[in-house]
Amino acid sequence: MRVAVLGAGTVGGEVVRALIERPTDLTAADGAPLELVGIAVRDVARARDAGLPPELLTDAPAHLVAADDTDVIVELMGGDEPAQTLIAAALAAGKSVVTANKHVIAHHGPNLEAAARRTGAALRFEASVGGGIPVLGPLATELAANRVVVVRGIVNGTTNYILSAMTDEGREYADVLAAAQAAGYAEADPRGDVEGLDAVNKLVILARLAFGLWIDPAAVATIAMDGPGSGRPGITGIGAADVAAAIATGRTIKLIAEARRGLDGTLSASVLPIALPSDAALARTSGVLNRIEIDAEPVGTVAFSGPGAGGPATSSAVLGDLVAISRELGSTWAGLPPAVGS
Amino acid sequence: MRVAVLGAGTVGGEVVRALIERPTDLTAADGAPLELVGIAVRDVARARDAGLPPELLTDAPAHLVAADDTDVIVELMGGDEPAQTLIAAALAAGKSVVTANKHVIAHHGPNLEAAARRTGAALRFEASVGGGIPVLGPLATELAANRVVVVRGIVNGTTNYILSAMTDEGREYADVLAAAQAAGYAEADPRGDVEGLDAVNKLVILARLAFGLWIDPAAVATIAMDGPGSGRPGITGIGAADVAAAIATGRTIKLIAEARRGLDGTLSASVLPIALPSDAALARTSGVLNRIEIDAEPVGTVAFSGPGAGGPATSSAVLGDLVAISRELGSTWAGLPPAVGS
Repeated sequence: MRVAVLGAGTVGGEVVRALIERPTDLTAADGAPLELVGIAVRDVARARDAGLPPELLTDAPAHLVAADDTDVIVELMGGDEPAQTLIAAALAAGKSVVTANKHVIAHHGPNLEAAARRTGAALRFEASVGGGIPVLGPLATELAANRVVVVRGIVNGTTNYILSAMTDEGREYADVLAAAQAAGYAEADPRGDVEGLDAVNKLVILARLAFGLWIDPAAVATIAMDGPGSGRPGITGIGAADVAAAIATGRTIKLIAEARRGLDGTLSASVLPIALPSDAALARTSGVLNRIEIDAEPVGTVAFSGPGAGGPATSSAVLGDLVAISRELGSTWAGLPPAVGS
Repeated sequence: MRVAVLGAGTVGGEVVRALIERPTDLTAADGAPLELVGIAVRDVARARDAGLPPELLTDAPAHLVAADDTDVIVELMGGDEPAQTLIAAALAAGKSVVTANKHVIAHHGPNLEAAARRTGAALRFEASVGGGIPVLGPLATELAANRVVVVRGIVNGTTNYILSAMTDEGREYADVLAAAQAAGYAEADPRGDVEGLDAVNKLVILARLAFGLWIDPAAVATIAMDGPGSGRPGITGIGAADVAAAIATGRTIKLIAEARRGLDGTLSASVLPIALPSDAALARTSGVLNRIEIDAEPVGTVAFSGPGAGGPATSSAVLGDLVAISRELGSTWAGLPPAVGS
């Protein structure tokens, strides 16, 4: 199985390193190791200086997608374009794809699922939710016989880090955000995280596995009508006074992504700051940890937790997906029926 | 796929009910529902009175295993014999098997794995550890690219219920055990639970998936050399004074199953009462909940928690395994290499 990796940043660098350094841990079903045949980067000279094998480097990801000698494409560039077009082109050509790109999967899921089903190529995206925490695969397989009622969780490390620091230290939002940016826990343009859009993407993907349909990211509520931070998206309306008021009543504010099937069968989905009882497991999920809870029949409530981001943790899910493709396990939705509508 | 269920007790009853009441949720890869063709019970008259379909009932499980019209055997009788012989016979005949029987898998794992690999039949046992919590499948698939360092957890609900009650209420061991027996949380002969043997079986199974070898259950330490309850197996040496002493130092006593790969590559495994810091997630796992933590490279620490026992929760894993077999996903060890020795 000849693998091309598009993007050699935080996650891509770890994936490339594993494919080079421990190929025997990552053998295909027939015992042959996965073979790394190309790495697309933005700046070839810098990648070479960083120690990546010069003979594998290119700045033309589309060439790797189209090349005769690539079987599987690992997309770790992030963002919308060109990632979306490259993934679609690979699937259309019958090449399986592994990606950690939650934006592309959440926003183009219906088209990409249709493309994968059309050509029989596998599309795997375990790394797009919860970093290295197994959760999409278990929904599609071990929990396949359940009817899911609720999926909820803390799925964005940046906002959880900010809220944890505000709670533990009583500081103001802008102050903690600036410190998080300085420490590399938040991006220069933090809106995708703090306004809840990253969590929305992950919730859309969880809902695909849990409920069998692609919900429109734009239909997920991110602005609370009342309660802490209401009227502003994500955690951007949360102030030190909100945090203090929550603490005073034994509560902790968390950004909770939740999709729920109502009694009438309709689905509601939101990413909102919620003041939870402080002894709840979600309230105690601190810093950059993620936790995802699933309420389902007949299993009851099961929970998955761990590091929701970072290169090494996320590479675990990407490499697991590569191994799964080598075992011919198909797409992340496995044997679940095709998704309903969008 | 024609399914025979051996045993219609707490778990078997739920599995039978699901196969009868919601066959469309449990369709095979080709869209055909799983077909229940036989139920073996100890007392046919009583099962009929309980509402099970008379035409499916038999008191001869071996006949269902041997019958031409059964494809998959679901073993939910528990205990060693005849379960072990029936599972081995089914695998030898090329019939796939789903079981929740941790005793048989832990004690006869090497032989049963060899039998399954010989005939190509699938052997699935997700329900044998953690009830409905997905953990064996994720170890074999989503986490397949990791090197596991430690698997640890609370995997026995009875002992955790007893220790939780002793901690919360300050009562003596014998008192709580008697109450647990009266309430149905502990068996009349509680030794398998309170002496740690049930947890040993589950640890052996976790270690197979995590470390690629079958360890001998007899090699797992269950008697601590020092600390709370030392000198006696499992939790049988824990008294109210031990619990009070732990609480006084901010700790909580839990029965922890742990398998760990040392720096020299050797594996050590134990099921021992440990006084954990009371704010640790394992310490806060109360009552009949289970929690399993996995430390691995590159993922870090991931955790799985939920209801570790009970008919409905455990039936989720059994039914998930049936769906997996219908999708031709093979055995619980999936594409992992054959286990090393025993």
